[in-house]
Amino acid sequence: MTTAVDRVRAAYARIAQVDRPEVWIALRPQADTESDAAAVDARVAAGDRLPLAGTVLAVKGNIDVAGLPTTAGCPAYAYEPDTDAPAVARMKAAGAVVLGTTNLDQFATGLVGTRSPYGAVRNSLSPEHVSGGSSSGSAVAVALGIADIALGTDTAGSGRVPAAFNGIVGLKPTFGLIPTEGVVPACASLDCVTVFARTLAEAEQAMSLMAAPSGRALSAPAPRDPGPWRIAVPELGQLGPLDPGWAEAFEAAAQRLADAGAELLPVDLAPFTEAAAMLYEGAFVAERYTAVGAFIDAHPGSPDLDPTVAGIISRAKDIPAHQLYADQQKLASLRVRALATLGDADALLLPTAPSHPTLTEVAADPLGVNARLGRFTNSTNLFDLAAVAVPAGDVNRLPFGVMLIGPAFTDERLVRIAGLLNNPPLQLAVIGAHLSGQPLNGQLLAVGGRLVRTTTTARAYRLYALDTLPPKPGLVRVGEGGGGGGGGGTIEAEVWQLPAEGLGMFLAALPRPMALGSVELADGSFVTGFLCEPQAVEGAREITSYGSWRAYLAALPRP
Amino acid sequence: MTTAVDRVRAAYARIAQVDRPEVWIALRPQADTESDAAAVDARVAAGDRLPLAGTVLAVKGNIDVAGLPTTAGCPAYAYEPDTDAPAVARMKAAGAVVLGTTNLDQFATGLVGTRSPYGAVRNSLSPEHVSGGSSSGSAVAVALGIADIALGTDTAGSGRVPAAFNGIVGLKPTFGLIPTEGVVPACASLDCVTVFARTLAEAEQAMSLMAAPSGRALSAPAPRDPGPWRIAVPELGQLGPLDPGWAEAFEAAAQRLADAGAELLPVDLAPFTEAAAMLYEGAFVAERYTAVGAFIDAHPGSPDLDPTVAGIISRAKDIPAHQLYADQQKLASLRVRALATLGDADALLLPTAPSHPTLTEVAADPLGVNARLGRFTNSTNLFDLAAVAVPAGDVNRLPFGVMLIGPAFTDERLVRIAGLLNNPPLQLAVIGAHLSGQPLNGQLLAVGGRLVRTTTTARAYRLYALDTLPPKPGLVRVGEGGGGGGGGGTIEAEVWQLPAEGLGMFLAALPRPMALGSVELADGSFVTGFLCEPQAVEGAREITSYGSWRAYLAALPRP
Repeated sequence: MTTAVDRVRAAYARIAQVDRPEVWIALRPQADTESDAAAVDARVAAGDRLPLAGTVLAVKGNIDVAGLPTTAGCPAYAYEPDTDAPAVARMKAAGAVVLGTTNLDQFATGLVGTRSPYGAVRNSLSPEHVSGGSSSGSAVAVALGIADIALGTDTAGSGRVPAAFNGIVGLKPTFGLIPTEGVVPACASLDCVTVFARTLAEAEQAMSLMAAPSGRALSAPAPRDPGPWRIAVPELGQLGPLDPGWAEAFEAAAQRLADAGAELLPVDLAPFTEAAAMLYEGAFVAERYTAVGAFIDAHPGSPDLDPTVAGIISRAKDIPAHQLYADQQKLASLRVRALATLGDADALLLPTAPSHPTLTEVAADPLGVNARLGRFTNSTNLFDLAAVAVPAGDVNRLPFGVMLIGPAFTDERLVRIAGLLNNPPLQLAVIGAHLSGQPLNGQLLAVGGRLVRTTTTARAYRLYALDTLPPKPGLVRVGEGGGGGGGGGTIEAEVWQLPAEGLGMFLAALPRPMALGSVELADGSFVTGFLCEPQAVEGAREITSYGSWRAYLAALPRP
Repeated sequence: MTTAVDRVRAAYARIAQVDRPEVWIALRPQADTESDAAAVDARVAAGDRLPLAGTVLAVKGNIDVAGLPTTAGCPAYAYEPDTDAPAVARMKAAGAVVLGTTNLDQFATGLVGTRSPYGAVRNSLSPEHVSGGSSSGSAVAVALGIADIALGTDTAGSGRVPAAFNGIVGLKPTFGLIPTEGVVPACASLDCVTVFARTLAEAEQAMSLMAAPSGRALSAPAPRDPGPWRIAVPELGQLGPLDPGWAEAFEAAAQRLADAGAELLPVDLAPFTEAAAMLYEGAFVAERYTAVGAFIDAHPGSPDLDPTVAGIISRAKDIPAHQLYADQQKLASLRVRALATLGDADALLLPTAPSHPTLTEVAADPLGVNARLGRFTNSTNLFDLAAVAVPAGDVNRLPFGVMLIGPAFTDERLVRIAGLLNNPPLQLAVIGAHLSGQPLNGQLLAVGGRLVRTTTTARAYRLYALDTLPPKPGLVRVGEGGGGGGGGGTIEAEVWQLPAEGLGMFLAALPRPMALGSVELADGSFVTGFLCEPQAVEGAREITSYGSWRAYLAALPRP
């Protein structure tokens, strides 16, 4: 069994291997984390049930970890907290071991991952590309396999853009679901603690362990009626410019949801885009001055300040309050429009970001490139929505990511829907009672199946009429030194597509002597398909020569 | 029967009689309102059920009435709306007839009633004192008996301070309960349409007719458990300086609630007072610039602008947004403290205002006097609470008013509690079976009765032992040419205090031949007391010489 100590040691080995020192602001000495891990192992050995025993945790540098400096990406700002932020404390209580604090866009102001005196964080997969930010180090630590879980924050996309750029999962929970005590505020009325993980299941578990009861949860929407998920998907024309290949990847993600049985609905993206534009153009940025403006003003020209970040926040000093009121009123009316166009959709599907810039591109236009990155993420927090960012394939050898965005307190529902993307539909070859029009075909339709094509098996199979009710055929491979003497034939097959969970449900209900295995088709590809237990064909009539279960049935004498 | 036309004519007669032209900004021609009233009368004659048929309505000059200019107290700002504000439309639909629009502190900025180019509005009862504002004309129109109901607005006390100063009822409903469409915003996030009336019942009826279903109502508190009302009452020391006699009047109001059976609870007023101070000292005033700042900037030095109001709003232009965020965060934490100190109280009792200045005092210090007036009202809107302002007696021949403030959507509950003040406890003289320790004394205790003192009747009564079960005495007045020959005696009496509703319940349950009437006491005062039907004493034994029902009972032979 892998112990917590083993996992911590593996993490340090991986750190040495990947050579990405900019990921960390304060990496703990290995001896300290091994000691913590040993304590976890001892508790487990003593019978404690720790759901995260040995989980290796990285924490964004703007979240308090007792004993480590909280820097928010600014050395001069650093303080040493006496206690863990509640989010960190809850992870540790569940058995996680904190490796250290990670680099970030200073004061969580940025979506690029380059705005830090601790160094620009390079993308985990392509060092010339940005990691995304502001939770840059946390995302890369998870993507590189150093940490199992990392905590980030998200005010306008900081917990999602770096997830997309590094091909991992990023959960932006409902505002208030995870306490933000012990977190350096960026915009206190919007900030959320977020979760990075390589799988949705790990991310959701961490979120549920950190979630706190909240009076706001009383406004959670009622459980939805059963039925297909309803996913709002904007027209490509409303998405604006995207990196090459990303439009197609986005449409493929939407199609994957449809293939999994979801109903795709139209939506007007305009209120979302207009709200997103207000984030940096409008008065809301003044909340960052409220948080750290006095500190920045007190340290003019300090090398500890990122000049881009300091400029953004300093300029917010003079934004007038009457403009903020006007913006708040405008935002409220945009929110009404946004919720109206979402209607009864369970989620809105969007690309997580419109493009993935290089470090060079960001350096050439630090403000412009950054502002464009938030086109799809900014509105989530402003509209008090929840979001789950998940990988949706690779484009040009870099990850492409999408978000599922939904009403506050639908976090778990969004994770379930996102799971349909993470688990793309699977194929199943059927050759007997499940063929279209045959008695058991309805079982496929019931779990979201869809006929993809009709073909035959490779010339390597024998078909037997089994003694089952209803009558079913048994398929047995004989080519390549298979069981029987002589070559096999080709057998008519239909290839069906099913959501992964649908295929699982189908398999779980499968009666003896049927089995599912890998079946070779005429084109040489292998798909999951019907086989049967060997003893079922003993004494059964071989009907390979009919070439098809349907042909065999048609030739039977009518009763 | 009084028709709507009669009522409208009476209103114009009263307008002519009181000679207060400054009350109105746009008084409709009498022919127009009579025509509207005739239409109401015709609908009633045709069988329409109009709950407000013939109610004479005045509307604050910042609320749209189709066909009249909406001025917000500034001639240059005026526009002529095509449609009524929903609040006005609902009152008209219920049969109310709009008399005209009333004067106000310009742009609803003020609590004095003097800040208007249409003239300072004098107090209805004392012309050298201010009317209070900003809903000055509306309050005075009701107080002078011109209008039955007037609409005001309340952002920081504008619907309550003038109610207090003019001895009428002012309801500040929960934010959002009455739509504010068609109302010139003062602070859009705080503004409420309010109701002035001479009685709580009329005010509550108007509020319920204007209230709109609101998604916010889902957050209404659960119905309370039965039991005495719990009223939070601050220590006098926390109220700060009050006009002479007002502290005593406030304590008397609290005592009246206690006498009516309410439980008085301690409360820390500090968070309320701190929030109130933030209203004009802090960044919130910038919302007024958002509403009309551009207009004011475009009319520098215009005689149509009140210089005090224009100055307040102009100066708000430069308040920075980062200060607003800081104030919003501070307010949020004050609100948490305020709700915590209120605990499970049903309402907070406060004076409506701390003082009632003269026009001269306001002119000498327009900003300072005004700011002090909002000490108790400002926090209500900032904390998203509801309030009912009611008269609580006169002090130095001017009205003194108090507020009952409670959680959002407890409006009706607050009206019920305020009713205990409007209907002060009544006194009842008992002389027989209801005396302390006698068999029916529990009936008094059950309806909230409290023994005030023991005395005797005036020397003008005869007492008879009636043939009732339990045995009761009958009291008959004989002095001043009363029924029997010869003078009467004095009879022992206890004076009890009961809530008005308790006395009503008691009377409704009174069995024959007992009656309640007016009984003269030894000190010459008259209080409600027990009498009986005349025929009950025919043939009954006169027991006046015992001087007391108890003495008579004690002298009876023991069975």
